[in-house]
Amino acid sequence: MQVQHYERVPQNPVNMPGAQGCAIRWLVGPDQGAPNFAMRQFEVSVGGHTPQHTHPYEHEVYVLEGRGVARSGDAEQPLRGGDVVYVAPNEVHQFRNTGDTPFKFLCLVPNVALEKQVAVAPECDS
Amino acid sequence: MQVQHYERVPQNPVNMPGAQGCAIRWLVGPDQGAPNFAMRQFEVSVGGHTPQHTHPYEHEVYVLEGRGVARSGDAEQPLRGGDVVYVAPNEVHQFRNTGDTPFKFLCLVPNVALEKQVAVAPECDS
Repeated sequence: MQVQHYERVPQNPVNMPGAQGCAIRWLVGPDQGAPNFAMRQFEVSVGGHTPQHTHPYEHEVYVLEGRGVARSGDAEQPLRGGDVVYVAPNEVHQFRNTGDTPFKFLCLVPNVALEKQVAVAPECDS
Repeated sequence: MQVQHYERVPQNPVNMPGAQGCAIRWLVGPDQGAPNFAMRQFEVSVGGHTPQHTHPYEHEVYVLEGRGVARSGDAEQPLRGGDVVYVAPNEVHQFRNTGDTPFKFLCLVPNVALEKQVAVAPECDS
Protein backbone atom coordinates (compact mmCIF):
# COMPACT_ATOMS: atom_id res chain seq x y z
CA MET A 1 0.00 0.00 0.00
CA GLN A 2 1.46 3.33 -1.00
CA VAL A 3 0.49 6.52 0.84
CA GLN A 4 1.63 10.04 0.09
CA HIS A 5 0.25 13.54 0.35
CA TYR A 6 -0.62 15.04 -3.01
CA GLU A 7 1.69 17.99 -2.43
CA ARG A 8 4.67 15.62 -2.40
CA VAL A 9 3.86 14.40 -5.90
CA PRO A 10 5.82 16.27 -8.59
CA GLN A 11 3.79 18.84 -10.50
CA ASN A 12 4.41 19.52 -14.18
CA PRO A 13 3.01 22.13 -16.56
CA VAL A 14 0.40 20.97 -19.05
CA ASN A 15 1.79 21.93 -22.42
CA MET A 16 -1.14 20.86 -24.57
CA PRO A 17 -2.31 23.32 -27.21
CA GLY A 18 -5.30 25.12 -25.74
CA ALA A 19 -4.18 24.77 -22.13
CA GLN A 20 -3.34 27.90 -20.16
CA GLY A 21 -1.98 28.01 -16.63
CA CYS A 22 -2.53 24.29 -16.01
CA ALA A 23 -0.34 21.93 -14.05
CA ILE A 24 -0.75 18.20 -13.47
CA ARG A 25 0.25 15.70 -10.81
CA TRP A 26 -0.03 11.98 -11.54
CA LEU A 27 -1.20 10.80 -8.12
CA VAL A 28 -1.74 7.20 -9.16
CA GLY A 29 -0.62 6.14 -12.59
CA PRO A 30 1.87 4.07 -14.50
CA ASP A 31 4.54 4.46 -11.81
CA GLN A 32 2.34 2.62 -9.33
CA GLY A 33 1.38 -0.06 -11.83
CA ALA A 34 -2.37 0.47 -11.45
CA PRO A 35 -3.87 -1.87 -14.04
CA ASN A 36 -7.08 -0.08 -15.01
CA PHE A 37 -7.19 3.68 -14.49
CA ALA A 38 -5.17 6.69 -13.36
CA MET A 39 -5.78 9.48 -10.83
CA ARG A 40 -4.41 12.88 -11.79
CA GLN A 41 -4.73 16.20 -9.98
CA PHE A 42 -5.01 19.39 -11.99
CA GLU A 43 -4.29 22.87 -10.71
CA VAL A 44 -5.50 25.72 -12.92
CA SER A 45 -4.20 29.17 -12.08
CA VAL A 46 -6.38 32.28 -11.95
CA GLY A 47 -7.65 32.99 -15.46
CA GLY A 48 -6.42 29.64 -16.77
CA HIS A 49 -8.20 26.75 -18.43
CA THR A 50 -7.76 23.25 -19.75
CA PRO A 51 -8.00 22.61 -23.49
CA GLN A 52 -11.46 22.36 -24.94
CA HIS A 53 -11.39 18.92 -26.46
CA THR A 54 -12.97 15.51 -26.75
CA HIS A 55 -11.75 11.92 -26.68
CA PRO A 56 -13.32 8.50 -26.82
CA TYR A 57 -13.19 7.76 -23.07
CA GLU A 58 -14.68 9.16 -19.90
CA HIS A 59 -13.44 11.59 -17.26
CA GLU A 60 -14.45 11.30 -13.63
CA VAL A 61 -13.77 14.60 -11.90
CA TYR A 62 -13.94 15.71 -8.25
CA VAL A 63 -13.47 19.39 -7.44
CA LEU A 64 -11.16 20.00 -4.48
CA GLU A 65 -10.68 23.77 -4.17
CA GLY A 66 -11.46 27.03 -5.87
CA ARG A 67 -14.15 28.13 -8.28
CA GLY A 68 -14.55 27.29 -11.91
CA VAL A 69 -16.84 26.17 -14.67
CA ALA A 70 -17.23 23.08 -16.77
CA ARG A 71 -17.89 24.15 -20.35
CA SER A 72 -19.38 21.90 -23.00
CA GLY A 73 -19.91 23.77 -26.25
CA ASP A 74 -21.96 26.85 -25.33
CA ALA A 75 -23.15 25.44 -22.00
CA GLU A 76 -21.38 26.22 -18.73
CA GLN A 77 -21.94 24.80 -15.28
CA PRO A 78 -20.40 26.39 -12.18
CA LEU A 79 -18.10 24.28 -10.03
CA ARG A 80 -17.00 24.44 -6.39
CA GLY A 81 -15.36 22.09 -3.90
CA GLY A 82 -17.23 18.81 -3.55
CA ASP A 83 -18.76 18.92 -7.03
CA VAL A 84 -18.54 15.77 -9.11
CA VAL A 85 -18.42 15.85 -12.90
CA TYR A 86 -18.94 12.94 -15.22
CA VAL A 87 -17.74 13.58 -18.76
CA ALA A 88 -18.97 10.81 -21.05
CA PRO A 89 -16.84 9.49 -23.91
CA ASN A 90 -16.78 11.84 -26.93
CA GLU A 91 -18.27 14.76 -25.01
CA VAL A 92 -16.60 18.12 -25.65
CA HIS A 93 -15.40 19.61 -22.36
CA GLN A 94 -13.22 22.27 -20.82
CA PHE A 95 -12.52 23.37 -17.24
CA ARG A 96 -11.91 27.04 -16.50
CA ASN A 97 -10.86 28.85 -13.34
CA THR A 98 -13.37 31.66 -12.74
CA GLY A 99 -12.24 32.50 -9.20
CA ASP A 100 -9.35 34.35 -7.63
CA THR A 101 -7.52 31.34 -6.18
CA PRO A 102 -6.10 28.20 -7.79
CA PHE A 103 -8.78 25.83 -9.06
CA LYS A 104 -7.88 22.25 -8.10
CA PHE A 105 -9.60 19.06 -9.13
CA LEU A 106 -9.02 15.36 -9.53
CA CYS A 107 -9.53 13.98 -13.03
CA LEU A 108 -9.40 10.24 -13.55
CA VAL A 109 -9.03 8.44 -16.85
CA PRO A 110 -8.96 4.81 -17.93
CA ASN A 111 -5.58 3.46 -18.96
CA VAL A 112 -6.66 3.51 -22.58
CA ALA A 113 -6.16 7.27 -22.32
CA LEU A 114 -2.48 6.75 -21.60
CA GLU A 115 -2.02 4.68 -24.73
CA LYS A 116 -3.66 7.44 -26.72
CA GLN A 117 -1.43 10.09 -25.12
CA VAL A 118 -4.35 12.42 -24.59
CA ALA A 119 -2.29 14.44 -22.17
CA VAL A 120 -0.20 15.74 -25.01
CA ALA A 121 -2.47 15.38 -28.03
CA PRO A 122 -5.83 17.12 -27.77
CA GLU A 123 -8.18 16.57 -30.66
CA CYS A 124 -9.09 20.25 -30.89
CA ASP A 125 -8.00 23.47 -29.24
CA SER A 126 -10.01 25.96 -27.26
CA MET B 1 -21.80 16.38 -18.84
CA GLN B 2 -23.31 15.69 -15.45
CA VAL B 3 -22.48 17.90 -12.46
CA GLN B 4 -23.70 17.50 -8.91
CA HIS B 5 -22.41 18.17 -5.42
CA TYR B 6 -21.50 15.01 -3.56
CA GLU B 7 -23.91 15.85 -0.74
CA ARG B 8 -26.82 15.54 -3.16
CA VAL B 9 -25.90 11.95 -3.98
CA PRO B 10 -27.84 9.43 -1.88
CA GLN B 11 -25.84 7.86 0.93
CA ASN B 12 -26.38 4.26 1.99
CA PRO B 13 -25.00 2.22 4.85
CA VAL B 14 -22.30 -0.32 4.03
CA ASN B 15 -23.64 -3.60 5.33
CA MET B 16 -20.63 -5.78 4.55
CA PRO B 17 -19.47 -8.10 7.32
CA GLY B 18 -16.56 -6.36 9.03
CA ALA B 19 -17.75 -2.84 8.27
CA GLN B 20 -18.72 -0.57 11.14
CA GLY B 21 -20.15 2.92 10.85
CA CYS B 22 -19.54 3.15 7.10
CA ALA B 23 -21.71 4.78 4.48
CA ILE B 24 -21.21 4.97 0.73
CA ARG B 25 -22.20 7.30 -2.07
CA TRP B 26 -21.80 6.19 -5.69
CA LEU B 27 -20.68 9.50 -7.20
CA VAL B 28 -20.03 8.08 -10.66
CA GLY B 29 -21.02 4.52 -11.37
CA PRO B 30 -23.42 2.33 -13.27
CA ASP B 31 -26.16 4.98 -13.25
CA GLN B 32 -23.97 7.31 -15.29
CA GLY B 33 -22.88 4.56 -17.65
CA ALA B 34 -19.15 5.10 -17.08
CA PRO B 35 -17.53 2.33 -19.08
CA ASN B 36 -14.35 1.64 -17.12
CA PHE B 37 -14.36 2.56 -13.43
CA ALA B 38 -16.48 3.94 -10.61
CA MET B 39 -16.00 6.79 -8.11
CA ARG B 40 -17.44 6.16 -4.65
CA GLN B 41 -17.26 8.33 -1.55
CA PHE B 42 -17.02 6.68 1.85
CA GLU B 43 -17.86 8.30 5.14
CA VAL B 44 -16.67 6.45 8.24
CA SER B 45 -18.09 7.62 11.55
CA VAL B 46 -16.00 8.14 14.69
CA GLY B 47 -14.66 4.76 15.81
CA GLY B 48 -15.76 3.09 12.59
CA HIS B 49 -13.88 1.17 9.93
CA THR B 50 -14.19 -0.54 6.59
CA PRO B 51 -13.84 -4.31 6.36
CA GLN B 52 -10.34 -5.69 6.35
CA HIS B 53 -10.29 -7.57 3.09
CA THR B 54 -8.60 -8.20 -0.22
CA HIS B 55 -9.71 -8.55 -3.83
CA PRO B 56 -8.05 -9.01 -7.20
CA TYR B 57 -8.26 -5.36 -8.33
CA GLU B 58 -6.90 -2.02 -7.23
CA HIS B 59 -8.25 0.82 -5.12
CA GLU B 60 -7.33 4.44 -5.78
CA VAL B 61 -8.13 6.50 -2.70
CA TYR B 62 -8.08 10.23 -2.00
CA VAL B 63 -8.67 11.42 1.56
CA LEU B 64 -11.07 14.38 1.80
CA GLU B 65 -11.66 15.07 5.49
CA GLY B 66 -10.92 13.76 8.95
CA ARG B 67 -8.21 11.56 10.35
CA GLY B 68 -7.70 7.87 9.93
CA VAL B 69 -5.31 5.07 9.17
CA ALA B 70 -4.78 2.65 6.32
CA ARG B 71 -4.07 -0.76 7.79
CA SER B 72 -2.46 -3.61 5.89
CA GLY B 73 -1.89 -6.61 8.12
CA ASP B 74 0.05 -5.31 11.13
CA ALA B 75 1.19 -2.13 9.39
CA GLU B 76 -0.67 1.16 9.77
CA GLN B 77 -0.16 4.44 8.00
CA PRO B 78 -1.81 7.67 9.21
CA LEU B 79 -4.11 9.51 6.83
CA ARG B 80 -5.31 13.12 6.55
CA GLY B 81 -6.93 15.30 3.91
CA GLY B 82 -4.99 15.33 0.65
CA ASP B 83 -3.38 11.93 1.18
CA VAL B 84 -3.46 9.52 -1.73
CA VAL B 85 -3.49 5.75 -1.23
CA TYR B 86 -2.84 3.15 -3.88
CA VAL B 87 -3.98 -0.34 -2.87
CA ALA B 88 -2.61 -2.87 -5.36
CA PRO B 89 -4.63 -5.92 -6.42
CA ASN B 90 -4.67 -8.67 -3.76
CA GLU B 91 -3.31 -6.39 -1.03
CA VAL B 92 -5.07 -6.71 2.34
CA HIS B 93 -6.39 -3.33 3.44
CA GLN B 94 -8.68 -1.56 5.87
CA PHE B 95 -9.49 2.10 6.55
CA ARG B 96 -10.22 3.20 10.12
CA ASN B 97 -11.39 6.51 11.55
CA THR B 98 -8.98 7.48 14.34
CA GLY B 99 -10.22 11.05 14.74
CA ASP B 100 -13.18 12.73 16.35
CA THR B 101 -14.97 13.80 13.17
CA PRO B 102 -16.27 11.83 10.18
CA PHE B 103 -13.51 10.39 8.02
CA LYS B 104 -14.32 10.92 4.34
CA PHE B 105 -12.49 9.62 1.32
CA LEU B 106 -12.95 8.80 -2.32
CA CYS B 107 -12.33 5.18 -3.30
CA LEU B 108 -12.34 4.27 -6.97
CA VAL B 109 -12.59 0.78 -8.41
CA PRO B 110 -12.54 -0.68 -11.91
CA ASN B 111 -15.84 -1.95 -13.22
CA VAL B 112 -14.69 -5.52 -12.75
CA ALA B 113 -15.30 -4.87 -9.05
CA LEU B 114 -18.98 -4.31 -9.74
CA GLU B 115 -19.30 -7.66 -11.43
CA LYS B 116 -17.67 -9.27 -8.43
CA GLN B 117 -20.02 -7.40 -6.06
CA VAL B 118 -17.17 -6.61 -3.70
CA ALA B 119 -19.29 -3.98 -2.05
CA VAL B 120 -21.42 -6.66 -0.48
CA ALA B 121 -19.12 -9.69 -0.42
CA PRO B 122 -15.77 -9.19 1.30
CA GLU B 123 -13.38 -12.09 1.12
CA CYS B 124 -12.57 -11.91 4.81
CA ASP B 125 -13.80 -9.99 7.83
CA SER B 126 -11.91 -7.66 10.11
